[in-house]
Amino acid sequence: MSKPPIGRDTRLCMSLSGRPGNAGSRLHNYLYAAMGLDYVYKSFTTTDLPAAIGGFRALGIRGCAISMPFKEAVIPLIDVLEPSAAVIDSVNTILNDDGYLTGYNTDYSAVRTMLRASPADPAKPFLLRGSGGMAKAVAAALRYAGFTQGTIVARNPVSGPALAAQYGFQWLPQLPEQGAPLLVNVTPLGMEGPDARTMAYPQAMVEAAEMVIDVVAQPALTPLIRAALAAGKPVITGAEVVVLQAVEQFTLYTGVEPDRALVIEAARFAHGDMTADRLAAAL
Amino acid sequence: MSKPPIGRDTRLCMSLSGRPGNAGSRLHNYLYAAMGLDYVYKSFTTTDLPAAIGGFRALGIRGCAISMPFKEAVIPLIDVLEPSAAVIDSVNTILNDDGYLTGYNTDYSAVRTMLRASPADPAKPFLLRGSGGMAKAVAAALRYAGFTQGTIVARNPVSGPALAAQYGFQWLPQLPEQGAPLLVNVTPLGMEGPDARTMAYPQAMVEAAEMVIDVVAQPALTPLIRAALAAGKPVITGAEVVVLQAVEQFTLYTGVEPDRALVIEAARFAHGDMTADRLAAAL
Repeated sequence: MSKPPIGRDTRLCMSLSGRPGNAGSRLHNYLYAAMGLDYVYKSFTTTDLPAAIGGFRALGIRGCAISMPFKEAVIPLIDVLEPSAAVIDSVNTILNDDGYLTGYNTDYSAVRTMLRASPADPAKPFLLRGSGGMAKAVAAALRYAGFTQGTIVARNPVSGPALAAQYGFQWLPQLPEQGAPLLVNVTPLGMEGPDARTMAYPQAMVEAAEMVIDVVAQPALTPLIRAALAAGKPVITGAEVVVLQAVEQFTLYTGVEPDRALVIEAARFAHGDMTADRLAAAL
Repeated sequence: MSKPPIGRDTRLCMSLSGRPGNAGSRLHNYLYAAMGLDYVYKSFTTTDLPAAIGGFRALGIRGCAISMPFKEAVIPLIDVLEPSAAVIDSVNTILNDDGYLTGYNTDYSAVRTMLRASPADPAKPFLLRGSGGMAKAVAAALRYAGFTQGTIVARNPVSGPALAAQYGFQWLPQLPEQGAPLLVNVTPLGMEGPDARTMAYPQAMVEAAEMVIDVVAQPALTPLIRAALAAGKPVITGAEVVVLQAVEQFTLYTGVEPDRALVIEAARFAHGDMTADRLAAAL
């Protein structure tokens, strides 16, 4: 199918993030074109979040993906939170129904899906670096997947202990000497930009671990993921999580679900062969 | 040239109007594609103009076309007005430079261009129906083209006399018995919707006139324009004005000017053969 030309009935969907990437636009616009949907997707950043969300509402823009650093600040600007977003206290998706805004968290279920397809063993301990909006979603996914022996490693003396306490995990302000079977990075360490070369866990911890999860998506091959793959460990990359959470957003915005083959095709277009092949194995 | 895929560097341009049409999106997107520009254009409506303009600013949307009924209400929301918009007291274009908003009126110069190419004789009287934002731009264009004997016909007892007084024209609250050599319609009479079948001037006045201008663009062939053409009168249609003012917006937004042949090609795509052929004769 081919996409109709942009006109008065075309629905706009958007993203708001501190550092907009290209992958979201590529993924959503690819799916719109493949399914013949009269939608268009565009990424934005802003220095005025209330005005940006006010415009999103007033212009009838259909949906908005929310990324770092807006996932928590956006909450007071939304009319109602869907339960998983309310429990996690972090929103990565807003649906606009004629000016009424509902907040969702599709990161949570995307991480759940990837955990289910992975060899991660909930009976074993994990370390999780980070305590921001995405860390809350990942911690919730780990807890509801059965993990009970976790440690949140976060410098922030408020959000770190709060996140640990919510799910009965431990909190440490900095990395312990001892690693864990599962290492999880939910910080920007390894992301395109100033932290691109920083590895979120020391080499020795990676080698001693059984599995590594990194939610950094740009690039998917962070120093941490590279080290884990070199050491033969199973991994979950941020790009896989990003694709799955975006596909859920797509379904919320359009009301239709792309089939598995199309998801893998769109992931190949937006994120490349590695992510598409890994998703093909997981889904 | 082909347009790059929509990504983080793509600039969005938009329109705000009470009744969004398809022609603006078609014209701008056609020019972007033809000139290989990384832009996308989308029309919107809103019930909350301040929030819509706040979002336009906060999201860094590059430009916004303003149509009925927002051309005057938008003024207090803009940082500075370019002189012609300030004199006319009506804005149909906003340029967003990193959050600083400048208001323009490209209707004014589009009508000037069409008047220059027409046989309209400034020494003779005209009737102009309307006193809204577009009427202000057309009245200014007529005055600066040398017309001095004009009558503004408008029921509104504030805006009607004010517009007449600004340019030394007469004001009448309703149509006189006697017509004029030039008949100008700047009301929604004849526009798609509830007024589609209403002719802005009586048949006898059209037959007695020398020329007719109608700024209704959807459709270009209003009952008034049809009657004038049937009576063999020269006309200026709203679609021609809309194309020329949109091309000026395009140049403000992108910094590049499409050549005459491309303008006519884009007008053909967005408004059809009649408008393209008429513009080819006028430009």
